[in-house]
Amino acid sequence: MKDVAARAGVGLKTVSRVVNGEPGVTADTESRVRAAIEALGFRRNDSARILRKGRTASIGLVLEDLADPFYSPLSRAVEEVARANGSLLFAGSSAEVPEREEELALALCARRVDGLVIVPASDDHRYLEPEIAAGIATVFVDRPASRIEADAVLTDNAGGARTAVAHLIAHGHRRIGFIGDRPHIHTADERVRGYREAMAAHGLAVREEWVSMGGTAPERVRAELERMASGPEAITALFSGNNRVTVTAVRVLSEHDRPIALVGFDDFELADLLRPGVTVIAQDPARLGRTAAELLFRRLDGDTAPPQRVELPGRLIPRGSGELPALQH
Amino acid sequence: MKDVAARAGVGLKTVSRVVNGEPGVTADTESRVRAAIEALGFRRNDSARILRKGRTASIGLVLEDLADPFYSPLSRAVEEVARANGSLLFAGSSAEVPEREEELALALCARRVDGLVIVPASDDHRYLEPEIAAGIATVFVDRPASRIEADAVLTDNAGGARTAVAHLIAHGHRRIGFIGDRPHIHTADERVRGYREAMAAHGLAVREEWVSMGGTAPERVRAELERMASGPEAITALFSGNNRVTVTAVRVLSEHDRPIALVGFDDFELADLLRPGVTVIAQDPARLGRTAAELLFRRLDGDTAPPQRVELPGRLIPRGSGELPALQH
Repeated sequence: MKDVAARAGVGLKTVSRVVNGEPGVTADTESRVRAAIEALGFRRNDSARILRKGRTASIGLVLEDLADPFYSPLSRAVEEVARANGSLLFAGSSAEVPEREEELALALCARRVDGLVIVPASDDHRYLEPEIAAGIATVFVDRPASRIEADAVLTDNAGGARTAVAHLIAHGHRRIGFIGDRPHIHTADERVRGYREAMAAHGLAVREEWVSMGGTAPERVRAELERMASGPEAITALFSGNNRVTVTAVRVLSEHDRPIALVGFDDFELADLLRPGVTVIAQDPARLGRTAAELLFRRLDGDTAPPQRVELPGRLIPRGSGELPALQH
Repeated sequence: MKDVAARAGVGLKTVSRVVNGEPGVTADTESRVRAAIEALGFRRNDSARILRKGRTASIGLVLEDLADPFYSPLSRAVEEVARANGSLLFAGSSAEVPEREEELALALCARRVDGLVIVPASDDHRYLEPEIAAGIATVFVDRPASRIEADAVLTDNAGGARTAVAHLIAHGHRRIGFIGDRPHIHTADERVRGYREAMAAHGLAVREEWVSMGGTAPERVRAELERMASGPEAITALFSGNNRVTVTAVRVLSEHDRPIALVGFDDFELADLLRPGVTVIAQDPARLGRTAAELLFRRLDGDTAPPQRVELPGRLIPRGSGELPALQH
């Protein structure tokens, strides 16, 4: 705005008047200001965003859970990119309830955010169509949008799951369990798909009592794991579907008398200092957040390419728990 | 709003017009609506908050760091209380920069939040006076406000620190180090004060090379701890000033050849599963958040009592690391 004012030889207030279509500016001055804006290369969205009347630019972040540490580095990365682009970040959580996601996203739009980064809980994002048509940029992260075409930045969840299960199979395991989040959550579905694909690729049958999807509450995970780990067909290894499940699994297995191998999806703090260290498929939540936010600001800066899906790889980090051999129980 | 409309025998739109002072309502209708509002017991703040034009009620949360897991349960608790009171929560972070706190708090006010819960980074909150005068309720949490009178919900940081250090002294330690966050952060100052008070109460001198305040960057904490743990006057125990410091201390001590006792301020996930388990002074961040948010909504509901300071106790959880004896090195 200062650059525009200097180039046009007018004050900041005059630039503001022109941009906001307020009265009190002569036609000559207005055309000088507009020429300066054009000469300095502001595209329509830029000028709308940066020069809007007096308001601090902002973007919104809709998370699934404010208390899941997976989202902490993601949130911080989004905030850092926002900050670097002169925007504030407002974050809130859907608590995995579709109606809350919609309520929160629309409330952010009503407060005139320029764009939204969304970890979706809903399976129908058509409610966003009027907002997107009105110019609100929207990028989905961690999970894709449903029923609309939109940018998404995801981890290759099925690929990471295949890697995890193949790793356990390579260490001699045949009876491998999976405990994951609720079905219909994109990441949970993709990870159980990868688990099944890896088992099938190695000619291993999956007993349905080895697969449990239904949320990450510690009591549930504990009960399911204790069930899978007992009896003549007990599992010798577990692939846990996210960091909430893994943390409970570590706790249960630490009390267990027979060693059961463990690979978790998602890294977590201090995983390397546990004994054994916890082998994981690490996502890069900071990179997910950064990539999504950078894509959002490219959209705000006028990038009108078709919606894209970016997939980031997961990375196996062997630390001990996933390399325990399969003992005959 | 529905109740008011039903009682006054008018439509929702009419109630909205009256509440917002819009034209198109006869004097008779207006007085019926106002009587219904009064009869139903809405106080001024209630009606202003709940009946404001079509807008979802909301509160803002200003954190110090979106990525510090200490704030995850605090944020979630604030959000749950907000939700129970029919409000959305918008959160953002100051990244410990005073100007960002101010910018974020004022941006939230400009977006018409009804109240703010603030983990302050600033040491001068007079910038909030016009907002508070305009009816924005404000509660500080984790750290108090500066230069204004305001509600605050805190942990008894000095008391918790005294407990931690007395515990180490009771296990035979005399050369006890302290690594904390930057000075002038309220919690850091209070904790180092508690450390010094406990040492003095037991007649123990504090060597200045045993005290290091200056932020929680892992490289800094590592260098300071390695320095304190070497030489003829090496410490035999460390009191770490917050969870970020503790996590790095655990890592450094796990590589150390001589055992050094450790008590950390703040609990953290899996502290019990490390070997040795990490002894901590546990705050209750969920209770901090819940207490602060409940106080905020009492203010919004018309509680005009003088500003209050609520102090919650810390709780010693012995797990092994704080009970290591003082060996002569």
